[in-house]
Amino acid sequence: MERTELTRERHRASRDTSSLYRLLDSQIIGHVAIQTDHGPLVLPTAIARVEDQLLMHGSVASGWMRRAKRGEQVSVAVTQVDGVIVARSSFESSIRYQSAVIFGRPEPVDDERKLWALTVLTEKLIPGRTAEIREPSAREIAQTMVLSIPIHEWSLKISNGWPDDGPEDVATSVWAGVVLDQPGTGRILEAPDLAAGVPVPSSVRALAHRSMPLGDAGS
Amino acid sequence: MERTELTRERHRASRDTSSLYRLLDSQIIGHVAIQTDHGPLVLPTAIARVEDQLLMHGSVASGWMRRAKRGEQVSVAVTQVDGVIVARSSFESSIRYQSAVIFGRPEPVDDERKLWALTVLTEKLIPGRTAEIREPSAREIAQTMVLSIPIHEWSLKISNGWPDDGPEDVATSVWAGVVLDQPGTGRILEAPDLAAGVPVPSSVRALAHRSMPLGDAGS
Repeated sequence: MERTELTRERHRASRDTSSLYRLLDSQIIGHVAIQTDHGPLVLPTAIARVEDQLLMHGSVASGWMRRAKRGEQVSVAVTQVDGVIVARSSFESSIRYQSAVIFGRPEPVDDERKLWALTVLTEKLIPGRTAEIREPSAREIAQTMVLSIPIHEWSLKISNGWPDDGPEDVATSVWAGVVLDQPGTGRILEAPDLAAGVPVPSSVRALAHRSMPLGDAGS
Repeated sequence: MERTELTRERHRASRDTSSLYRLLDSQIIGHVAIQTDHGPLVLPTAIARVEDQLLMHGSVASGWMRRAKRGEQVSVAVTQVDGVIVARSSFESSIRYQSAVIFGRPEPVDDERKLWALTVLTEKLIPGRTAEIREPSAREIAQTMVLSIPIHEWSLKISNGWPDDGPEDVATSVWAGVVLDQPGTGRILEAPDLAAGVPVPSSVRALAHRSMPLGDAGS
């Protein structure tokens, strides 16, 4: 089996490159996995996409980057949490999310293109910043490693649905819906199959009122 | 070298268990890496901590869980993005974050403790929900796998500082500070060494006004 084939939940698999690129462009970090002598290692790293390349950078002293630039296989996951699917059972309750996994052998960006790649990474983190600051020095460029992975072998999984409760659960008066992970109003969405008049339970009200309930963005 | 030793930036390493637990408890997903025949694979997964154990669950059909429960080595990263460190150079600009990496061999939670473990995971995702819904059925429990990793071998890296610009950069009139990834006011923090009267540049204003600029939590 190809490793980009999902072993399960194939209905959530997408081959849509524009959805993939949108996800990669919306996230500033990914998690990269590499095999070491002691087993697999996973670490967060800043990312930026340019066309069909994923750029990552770090210190030339970074252990995983030194290993990766020797042409070892890595995978990079980029994940966005969109909310919580609150079903009528714990079994069907889950997370609304989008997750891409890219497989490949990173290559170091060569010296001629490194200034360009670093500019792309800075602009990803702080759009518009490059015009406000000095150019990187030769020493700074030399101290930084930039790796590039072709975005050719990838999988994308999008969970954006509703609680999938069976008829016996739907027939109860238990609330079901989605709590979106976004600020402001409209965070609590009722399931399409929810009967009229079922009040929002206290667990869902509490979840929706936490300032940042989910994902990487604070607690 | 022990794999829990950071190869660089050791000043950011922490051995504080309560900081580790606080991070693990604040995040609903981690990224787990496992070695496969095709190279390392990294995937997002829901997590919950109980004492010194990290729980993860999924379908019994999940490829990585079937592999992991055979006693293979994995690592799990749990990351929180707190903001962007906006320095006077691109080289010193970076991310404020906390990241834990746990290494170990997951063990399947046995049948006697599975209902308890699933309850812990549901309560992590939607606190208070268990009291509002029915118990999981025997079939649902049988279809779910729960893995547990001892939180014994781990590293924790906390980047919570300020731009570390050299004296030549500090002497310029370029703005420096931090943009926090939190809603509302007070998101833009001036660097302690910023001279009086330096206006906030447009890149920083734009970053602070994006509704969800960072991390996993939407775009």
